Amino acid sequence: SGLVHIKNPHLDAMEEDVLYHLDLGTKTHNLPAMFGDIKFVCVGGSPKRMRAFAQFMHKELGLTGDGEDLADICAGTDRYAMYRAGPVLSISHGMGIPSISIMLHELIKLLHHAKCRDVTIIRIGTSGGLGIEAGSVVITDTAVDSSFKPRFEQVVLDDVVVRSTELDKDLAEELLSCSKEVPDFPTLIGHTMCTYDFYEGQGRLDGALCSFSSEKKLKYLKRAYDAGVRNIEMESTAFAALCGLCGLKGESSC
Amino acid sequence: SGLVHIKNPHLDAMEEDVLYHLDLGTKTHNLPAMFGDIKFVCVGGSPKRMRAFAQFMHKELGLTGDGEDLADICAGTDRYAMYRAGPVLSISHGMGIPSISIMLHELIKLLHHAKCRDVTIIRIGTSGGLGIEAGSVVITDTAVDSSFKPRFEQVVLDDVVVRSTELDKDLAEELLSCSKEVPDFPTLIGHTMCTYDFYEGQGRLDGALCSFSSEKKLKYLKRAYDAGVRNIEMESTAFAALCGLCGLKGESSC
Repeated sequence: SGLVHIKNPHLDAMEEDVLYHLDLGTKTHNLPAMFGDIKFVCVGGSPKRMRAFAQFMHKELGLTGDGEDLADICAGTDRYAMYRAGPVLSISHGMGIPSISIMLHELIKLLHHAKCRDVTIIRIGTSGGLGIEAGSVVITDTAVDSSFKPRFEQVVLDDVVVRSTELDKDLAEELLSCSKEVPDFPTLIGHTMCTYDFYEGQGRLDGALCSFSSEKKLKYLKRAYDAGVRNIEMESTAFAALCGLCGLKGESSC
Repeated sequence: SGLVHIKNPHLDAMEEDVLYHLDLGTKTHNLPAMFGDIKFVCVGGSPKRMRAFAQFMHKELGLTGDGEDLADICAGTDRYAMYRAGPVLSISHGMGIPSISIMLHELIKLLHHAKCRDVTIIRIGTSGGLGIEAGSVVITDTAVDSSFKPRFEQVVLDDVVVRSTELDKDLAEELLSCSKEVPDFPTLIGHTMCTYDFYEGQGRLDGALCSFSSEKKLKYLKRAYDAGVRNIEMESTAFAALCGLCGLKGESSC
């Protein structure tokens, strides 16, 4: 059907669904009218960059009106920022798995309530490259954890549930072929490693705490490279797991 | 000495330390002049609320000038927002452990470079209460994970290191006695449970995914209450672990 899958039997019984961190809701907003025609959702960490991206899309799509003047749809909250340009929604998610997870739960419910069909979601945040040219774009085939395993461990109450982190392979190939029209950015497909920490978790030597040597760091990064990792960031495993479970065609291109 | 402890032998050898996510650095800014007299740091998730808190402190401390007009010290980035009112620094940290960890690593280095002494840090974010009156303030004695254990599991490269999450008990008692002057907010000391997820991790029935029944949720929350948990949020274990290791007197009061 192309609709988003909500896997929550409680939701149908709820009189109202408040998407608290987006400052939207089923009783306060006409979500099908506001979002029913959305076909693409692009997400990234920084609110300002997601605004700039929406402005860029506004121009690229040749939309009428001043793209400089786009309103933040989530203006009532400062947790996330959301802009739209035609069929493209551009949303910030902050940094790290917990932050993107909150946004994705509420976005997925938004797409469900709005009865959107055939939506593609692409994460376009920043990441650190591994053994590749600076400025490269890595299209993720599989998101892996800090042990290079393609899994996301979600704590549900106090149980740990392991989820798959595969992304849409056809979409990855499609993005790669699009990239051939843009010569400025070397683009490749590879694994993306997702960590819970920017400093100790990614082998940085310049945090407030660092207990490892430069040699140990390099050995770890070499092992990551040998396992197929080409970039490192902090959201992709949760993104892949949630998109996969809810039937959203998703890709990460950082 | 009252100084902050940096536990990173690499830092001394660095010519410059760029606090990237704060848009500050040792070469671009005179950190001792800007921050050397800071005695209190208050942190919370939302940038707007941390601005409002700095304005409130400006008035409370009877500082001259217009408190409405406080400048964001991190204006060059939208990752975090930082304001100061006299000896009080007010900083946002976004949502979740990864987001607060990045900020704390850079804040701790900032306090180190600025040669600050005897700094107290208090998290004043929001949280969900457990079996207590709505609107209560919970002062955390110990932060616990989703299994109610007083520990924070930090992934360092691909090793898991377990860290203590005890907070400053004297400071907790001091805050509790301060609270007696403010009759509007019921205040208590208790354990704070810190989760990686807002929906499935905290027993919410209204996420995009929910695989448990209302009964199972209530059983889990009852077990948490019986283990001493009085509120739930998403940053306290990492906050407690980092403050403890770096010799910062820290408390969470949400």
